[in-house]
Amino acid sequence: MSQRFFQDDLKGNYCFGCGSDNEHGLQIKSYLSGDELVCKWQPKEYHTAAPGILYGGIIASLIDCHSVWTAVVAAYRAEGRDIKTDPPIFYVTGSLNVKYLRPTPMNGPVVLRARVKEMKEKSTVVVCSLFANEQECAQGEVVAVRISESWIKPE
Amino acid sequence: MSQRFFQDDLKGNYCFGCGSDNEHGLQIKSYLSGDELVCKWQPKEYHTAAPGILYGGIIASLIDCHSVWTAVVAAYRAEGRDIKTDPPIFYVTGSLNVKYLRPTPMNGPVVLRARVKEMKEKSTVVVCSLFANEQECAQGEVVAVRISESWIKPE
Repeated sequence: MSQRFFQDDLKGNYCFGCGSDNEHGLQIKSYLSGDELVCKWQPKEYHTAAPGILYGGIIASLIDCHSVWTAVVAAYRAEGRDIKTDPPIFYVTGSLNVKYLRPTPMNGPVVLRARVKEMKEKSTVVVCSLFANEQECAQGEVVAVRISESWIKPE
Repeated sequence: MSQRFFQDDLKGNYCFGCGSDNEHGLQIKSYLSGDELVCKWQPKEYHTAAPGILYGGIIASLIDCHSVWTAVVAAYRAEGRDIKTDPPIFYVTGSLNVKYLRPTPMNGPVVLRARVKEMKEKSTVVVCSLFANEQECAQGEVVAVRISESWIKPE
């Protein structure tokens, strides 16, 4: 088990979900634990839907970003190399599916656990659950699509 | 066609997606146009995924909140009464499904158009598309579940 946070290795990342450089963003941090990618995240008071309940769009954002990172990490592992090595591997979200099982309380951090369900050459299906107080509150499935660097950095 | 924004009628709403009172939130405003609920929304620079591209979790949030409002407005209309009348009607998101068709540019506002696909006693299925520069960039489907007021205001 490693507590290395993959997002810390990506400089100049302003993504609202995972960018360490986006001061307004969620700044999720994901680490590998066995075959799962895990993220522990503390909501701010204003991430609310109704009093004491986490907003569903934030839950979707967490599942989205953490799942795409799961696909990225899995792709590097499949190639037997570290994510700091070239060429860089990029994925974007093709589709996102979230089932809300119960209200998610905001009285502590939430924990996301994601794993690869299916990996193909150009896309990876990731399943991800979100827990609060060790109770599963939401389930997500993300199809992450592998893209070239030019998608990220248009000419 | 009415330009009345339904969210303006809900005071003390701190929802990150639609709460007029949440200064950190997205503060979406939805109005009725024929059988569609429409929302025009201007991203801030920090709502980004990669430079110039809107973050997918924000897209999911917009589709989520705007679709739930579509279910709420439809329920009041089905009962033939204004949303300012009692008893209040509440819906939450049961599930959220988003398909990302192409990168969503951030060089102007996005427009969401949602309509009821199926309405049952306790749940409503809403379909919602997101457009940028009049091009459809994402499609969503939300199952909104009708709840009692006690869900929102726990004892």
